[in-house]
Amino acid sequence: MPDQPAVSTPQPASAIPWADQLCEAIRQRNSAVCVGLDPRTQQLPISLAPPAGADNAAIAECYRRFSEGIIDAVADLVPVVKPQAAFFEQLGPAGTVALAQVIDHAIDAGLLVVLDAKRNDIGTTAEAYAAAYLGRTSPWHSDALTVSPYLGDDSLDPFVDACDRSAAGIFVLVKTSNPGGRFLQDRRADGEAIYQTVAKWVTQANASRLGRFGYGPVGAVVGATYPEQLAELRAAMPGTLILIPGFGAQGGAAADVAAGFDSRGLGAIVNNSRNILFAYQRPEFAETYGPARWQDAARQATVEMNQQLNEIRSSGG
Amino acid sequence: MPDQPAVSTPQPASAIPWADQLCEAIRQRNSAVCVGLDPRTQQLPISLAPPAGADNAAIAECYRRFSEGIIDAVADLVPVVKPQAAFFEQLGPAGTVALAQVIDHAIDAGLLVVLDAKRNDIGTTAEAYAAAYLGRTSPWHSDALTVSPYLGDDSLDPFVDACDRSAAGIFVLVKTSNPGGRFLQDRRADGEAIYQTVAKWVTQANASRLGRFGYGPVGAVVGATYPEQLAELRAAMPGTLILIPGFGAQGGAAADVAAGFDSRGLGAIVNNSRNILFAYQRPEFAETYGPARWQDAARQATVEMNQQLNEIRSSGG
Repeated sequence: MPDQPAVSTPQPASAIPWADQLCEAIRQRNSAVCVGLDPRTQQLPISLAPPAGADNAAIAECYRRFSEGIIDAVADLVPVVKPQAAFFEQLGPAGTVALAQVIDHAIDAGLLVVLDAKRNDIGTTAEAYAAAYLGRTSPWHSDALTVSPYLGDDSLDPFVDACDRSAAGIFVLVKTSNPGGRFLQDRRADGEAIYQTVAKWVTQANASRLGRFGYGPVGAVVGATYPEQLAELRAAMPGTLILIPGFGAQGGAAADVAAGFDSRGLGAIVNNSRNILFAYQRPEFAETYGPARWQDAARQATVEMNQQLNEIRSSGG
Repeated sequence: MPDQPAVSTPQPASAIPWADQLCEAIRQRNSAVCVGLDPRTQQLPISLAPPAGADNAAIAECYRRFSEGIIDAVADLVPVVKPQAAFFEQLGPAGTVALAQVIDHAIDAGLLVVLDAKRNDIGTTAEAYAAAYLGRTSPWHSDALTVSPYLGDDSLDPFVDACDRSAAGIFVLVKTSNPGGRFLQDRRADGEAIYQTVAKWVTQANASRLGRFGYGPVGAVVGATYPEQLAELRAAMPGTLILIPGFGAQGGAAADVAAGFDSRGLGAIVNNSRNILFAYQRPEFAETYGPARWQDAARQATVEMNQQLNEIRSSGG
């Protein structure tokens, strides 16, 4: 059985705005890598694989141990981790209890936490999501949250207000990494694509909220799989932090994400989930590390991704 | 403290498609009302109000008891309830444990359950959300889920596949009830509004999946606050069940939702949350019922909403 829920310790509120916290952490670690925490039952190393017929509580315990092991392996190498809520929610309530434990473990390890949950709703319901997930004093303790814009500008406002109150951040879906992202996001109305409409709103929301690195709390998700739009959006949203998914397993490479950075090598974090989490299964690591050394493999994969990104970051974006 | 998570009993899979289950339940109860389960701390009746300084686990227990009390009050009057995930998630892991208990209580009371969580993601992450929430054999046991379309058509496909496997349903956000819904949804590209693009996709997804009442598993959310678009979308999506929020507290009235129904009075469910949950606070109920009889007030409010809707349903939509 998992631990009882709601045993997490209260977290102190930060007085430092989220964007400044993230930029400072990127500088301190010399890393723009975000490690995505996407546990998958079929890919867990043998020592953490749930036995056949294990119930969701037992699998959730495996997810927790695996995610915490990854955190321990990379905590000094990266500024931020991004737990994926879906994989934990897939295990029912026991999974969400594990998710909260993983978030707290990351915080204890000195990491910032972006919860990837793509939430949104309207009015007081959006306020409830914002209160749930934004900031260290929120019940889930996460620093930032991914948010979907389909419901419109007034659905995003409560999240921005909560960012102001809680030194927190959001990343609004602008241009996602999947092929179907074009279905709505690329449609052009009055000469402007939908993703550009969202980008304009994000830019405006940040305008009065820029911190000491020139970035505001309202970030944008822009996939590594669309390098041209990434360059365009970097230019169009100068005060906006960009969360770039799609690196690695989805096909994005270092050259594809170069345009996401500013001339100081700031302004973006690049997420990698599978190629770090399950590095022990990658052909180039399998022989050296093997399943028992899955943490070492994850660490080495992170070191290498840092090197790849730092080369393009130091070239001036 | 709440109960341990993951104690819920396995639920049997239904062999009857979701749309047929819902239409049958609407006929049996002679009701198209969906009771939204949106517990709010400040509005709980005095007997269930958490004491000052109560922790989230204690508040979650109040939410559970209140939601289950509402379910008990209306279970024989309506076909379906719609828990709002945000209010439970706002209480941290203890809230999500309570949410699972509330869903199971609704099922045990003979109700269908639409979980309002507005989830979505891409690829295998969308599959994880679909596996989490779709069908009685899923970990959360809910029959249907609200889903956001911003990520595109390929992000919706895994949910449709899961509907096929699990006799479950989804409701895709098409035209939401908030003023800001127009921000993206009403933008016109190539002569077609974004909400119309989504509506077309929904219609096509249902085309090969129509059940014995002529409806498929891929529903649409269309707000009561836009009666013209509701009429337009009813005509454009003949095989699509419509979930209509925005009735009551948000301003929608019976005449506004009439266009959502087909000539048999089927094809839509109309959600009401606050005006039923907190009916004991409404001026017209307060004197008769008072805070102690909050369940009776909720039941009476449901009876009256059934009467209002059945008048316009029987007039042929």
